[in-house]
Amino acid sequence: MQTYLHDKPIKYDGTQLVSHFAYNHFNLLGDAIVSFMGPCDVKIDQLVDLEDVHQNAFIFSENMLHFIVEHFHDDLLLTIAWQRLLIDLIISEMKVDLPGGPWERRGDDIYDDVFKVSVSIATRSPVSCLIHTGINISSNNTPVLTKGLDDYHINPQALATGVMNRYRAEIESMRKARAKVRGVG
Amino acid sequence: MQTYLHDKPIKYDGTQLVSHFAYNHFNLLGDAIVSFMGPCDVKIDQLVDLEDVHQNAFIFSENMLHFIVEHFHDDLLLTIAWQRLLIDLIISEMKVDLPGGPWERRGDDIYDDVFKVSVSIATRSPVSCLIHTGINISSNNTPVLTKGLDDYHINPQALATGVMNRYRAEIESMRKARAKVRGVG
Amino acid sequence: MQTYLHDKPIKYDGTQLVSHFAYNHFNLLGDAIVSFMGPCDVKIDQLVDLEDVHQNAFIFSENMLHFIVEHFHDDLLLTIAWQRLLIDLIISEMKVDLPGGPWERRGDDIYDDVFKVSVSIATRSPVSCLIHTGINISSNNTPVLTKGLDDYHINPQALATGVMNRYRAEIESMRKARAKVRGVG
Amino acid sequence: MQTYLHDKPIKYDGTQLVSHFAYNHFNLLGDAIVSFMGPCDVKIDQLVDLEDVHQNAFIFSENMLHFIVEHFHDDLLLTIAWQRLLIDLIISEMKVDLPGGPWERRGDDIYDDVFKVSVSIATRSPVSCLIHTGINISSNNTPVLTKGLDDYHINPQALATGVMNRYRAEIESMRKARAKVRGVG
Amino acid sequence: MQTYLHDKPIKYDGTQLVSHFAYNHFNLLGDAIVSFMGPCDVKIDQLVDLEDVHQNAFIFSENMLHFIVEHFHDDLLLTIAWQRLLIDLIISEMKVDLPGGPWERRGDDIYDDVFKVSVSIATRSPVSCLIHTGINISSNNTPVLTKGLDDYHINPQALATGVMNRYRAEIESMRKARAKVRGVG
Amino acid sequence: MQTYLHDKPIKYDGTQLVSHFAYNHFNLLGDAIVSFMGPCDVKIDQLVDLEDVHQNAFIFSENMLHFIVEHFHDDLLLTIAWQRLLIDLIISEMKVDLPGGPWERRGDDIYDDVFKVSVSIATRSPVSCLIHTGINISSNNTPVLTKGLDDYHINPQALATGVMNRYRAEIESMRKARAKVRGVG
Repeated sequence: MQTYLHDKPIKYDGTQLVSHFAYNHFNLLGDAIVSFMGPCDVKIDQLVDLEDVHQNAFIFSENMLHFIVEHFHDDLLLTIAWQRLLIDLIISEMKVDLPGGPWERRGDDIYDDVFKVSVSIATRSPVSCLIHTGINISSNNTPVLTKGLDDYHINPQALATGVMNRYRAEIESMRKARAKVRGVG
Repeated sequence: MQTYLHDKPIKYDGTQLVSHFAYNHFNLLGDAIVSFMGPCDVKIDQLVDLEDVHQNAFIFSENMLHFIVEHFHDDLLLTIAWQRLLIDLIISEMKVDLPGGPWERRGDDIYDDVFKVSVSIATRSPVSCLIHTGINISSNNTPVLTKGLDDYHINPQALATGVMNRYRAEIESMRKARAKVRGVG
Repeated sequence: MQTYLHDKPIKYDGTQLVSHFAYNHFNLLGDAIVSFMGPCDVKIDQLVDLEDVHQNAFIFSENMLHFIVEHFHDDLLLTIAWQRLLIDLIISEMKVDLPGGPWERRGDDIYDDVFKVSVSIATRSPVSCLIHTGINISSNNTPVLTKGLDDYHINPQALATGVMNRYRAEIESMRKARAKVRGVG
Repeated sequence: MQTYLHDKPIKYDGTQLVSHFAYNHFNLLGDAIVSFMGPCDVKIDQLVDLEDVHQNAFIFSENMLHFIVEHFHDDLLLTIAWQRLLIDLIISEMKVDLPGGPWERRGDDIYDDVFKVSVSIATRSPVSCLIHTGINISSNNTPVLTKGLDDYHINPQALATGVMNRYRAEIESMRKARAKVRGVG
Repeated sequence: MQTYLHDKPIKYDGTQLVSHFAYNHFNLLGDAIVSFMGPCDVKIDQLVDLEDVHQNAFIFSENMLHFIVEHFHDDLLLTIAWQRLLIDLIISEMKVDLPGGPWERRGDDIYDDVFKVSVSIATRSPVSCLIHTGINISSNNTPVLTKGLDDYHINPQALATGVMNRYRAEIESMRKARAKVRGVG
Repeated sequence: MQTYLHDKPIKYDGTQLVSHFAYNHFNLLGDAIVSFMGPCDVKIDQLVDLEDVHQNAFIFSENMLHFIVEHFHDDLLLTIAWQRLLIDLIISEMKVDLPGGPWERRGDDIYDDVFKVSVSIATRSPVSCLIHTGINISSNNTPVLTKGLDDYHINPQALATGVMNRYRAEIESMRKARAKVRGVG
């Protein structure tokens, strides 16, 4: 799969979680993980997570590090598993910068104690499965208690590159693991 | 899915990685994660991991905490993703006992620096997918450099219970996540 | 899976056959069978069954017992098989009230001789598969010859509860059957 | 799918539940339902149903009407759903002979009150899914309380033909239902 | 699967590549390959191939022989494989008329040297997979270098009939091949 | 996927059609197409094609060019489609050497008039799908009328390389085609 870090800010308002985002914006055809920075402002009618809709929990951040992943398969449950591995990989990469850092994954979120560090959702388009994960850079003016990369003095671009390399390696390594075992009785 | 901690030792020689192990031994019908302690001694001809076969890398441990997981589906790639999440959950649970502990996941293994702490494999039977994960309790007389739960003063039974509860919750939470999203364009 | 009998009437006009109906209206997240009573008035442009569209066969009933089933999987053929089992279970439950009752399943419909007792359709949303089944309570003013639960003096609420319990048990029993067999050569 | 009624008795001992039975014995290539009569004597080590193995519940009948179904797909859960529809169709066909007959389906079995009328199992081979259903003709010397077709004066051959025609029509009708619906939101 | 050659011209503008085209226009329910002649004029906003969209490569032909295939399954990758076999079958059928003809398949296109003879796309609807293939009859006024059936003096109707018969036979033959093999170790 | 031409002869007796052949013999882990030359002598009890078994049609050739393909997926029908595309690619590559050559694909075989030029089968292992295709080099002493590459003065090694490159490109091109389309209504 391909990786790409975009160097100009993009405002994430939910319409980026759509099939062929990486192809239409960055000319990457096929499975890809892409990353960019920018504010996050997802209104209720753009929310994909219906639990958030029920709780009227819109999403807002002045600046986030965004990842958009697209796999051209149909398996949403597999995509959710990979989403959670992605979150674990993000935490691992953050701990490279800040060993023993305070983060833990709860479901598909990163928390530092009561502070929410990320948002994430996995869903399906007519031709693919998609993941969005946003890591707060700024923790100002968020609707819930948050912390962001600035609070930890973590460089977003370096984090983005490290995470995308880890994710690509993880997917390849799982495919390899798929191919190296014999069946059992 | 069901969880079960067996209180008598069982020697793991590879023949336990077989469909309906939990049903035939512990009367648990359906998806389950079970755990027991005991030595591990998998000869070459019982190895499921062909990379290990190629490297003549038999498995031996005087005492391990074993997990056997069975899901009655056919999706080996999904099972491999869940296997890796299981490893992450084991590390998280170990860190409850030893905050800031030195472990990291590499592929489907747990490492403490150069010391291997676990073995794991995921495969398929004619009717299900299966995971075996063994965590060293003892690190004596192993064919490679290892550390074990005894070296960290971690109680295996408590770890087993914690891990199985986390895994069950994780699977349920992923199924819930599967059901709470709308599709996108 | 979850079951729920709603105690207030809802008019069924076809827009209820949509993903997350049970979640958005009754706060049930995940696989569910729900039931309610109310008129049925599905205009041509809301029909999901294209054979009905071709025959201009709109659906109308002054009062029906409705079931809406949602399974968060993608297998439409499996859903159709379960739909037909659901119809068989409804007939079985009706015969509890009226032993030796005159009903038989034809495809996905219940008939009493030439009288149509039910309507049903199974289809797919972007994230799930769905079934709607409506059993006539009233047989007045229907566009084809019908009979309804009132004609048989069958209590709709009791029927709904019985049917939903049977359906939940049937699905669970099939999953159990999936897990209890070994493969063959 | 193809149907075939074999006119010579075959003893069913479990080894008939194997891929390509219809092709290797009756030269029917592809999906098929076949039927024959003969004794049933399945020893413990040939049982496919592990619940029966656990209960040491071997199967014996002096004479049964057997159905063997093979579908060249991999979906065991779908096959189980079709198995249960097959049982419902058998009951429907028996009621053509004996209107208001006393049979009901419990899981994948036919019961007349406390009397067991049938055995059935669905499983998977390396290349297909398979169903065996046996209806007692004789109820003599069975290990549990049973009734058989002779007790009801039902002709086995006529039943076999009727059941196979119904099953073929049901499968075709479900495929048609798969093709006639539009998706919903 | 069903085949049908329509004898009146239809202009193909992309809106024909939609689920149930054969059912809604020709009353063919289920898997089908249908054919008709007529101009082809697909504007950018109707293009399904996003590579064409990126290159602003609209499609125009004064007259084409069109095939629309619908399979009521969800496997887009399988459909793409069948699409390419369909192209090979079209070339084989053209060579019946013109032995040793100059055509070769490149991806999903037919080329005669630098001249493009066909367009084709495979995609998915909410309930099925679809293929459109158009073979130029006329090569006048096309936006790229083309040749058409008129240039080769090949009769479109005869070609259509031959191709549809070959495609139906090929699909049936592959299903048969699926059913005639035993598994291996 | 990986390609590999082995430069020493291997006798093909059917036992090579097994999971992980390329990994165990040539150390290629994952999807691969490999090729080698050698005699072909498949006895009845090693035949995978049950039609051949029924006809007692053992396979013998003094020298063949063999291809073994392994895909670590479970879709046998897709594998059969790819097998037939492989045959078409072999014919295309042979025509590079001998333009206008006399070969045509019939099912999964290559024929030159009444002369059989190849054998082929696709099947499934517990963890993968597999294809074997053998092209006669020699046509001496075969049990049916055959022709071989020597009769056409085609160099087997060059053919092998060309075919494997085409197959790898075809598979990649189909995956790309999977990723470049939007869905339709």
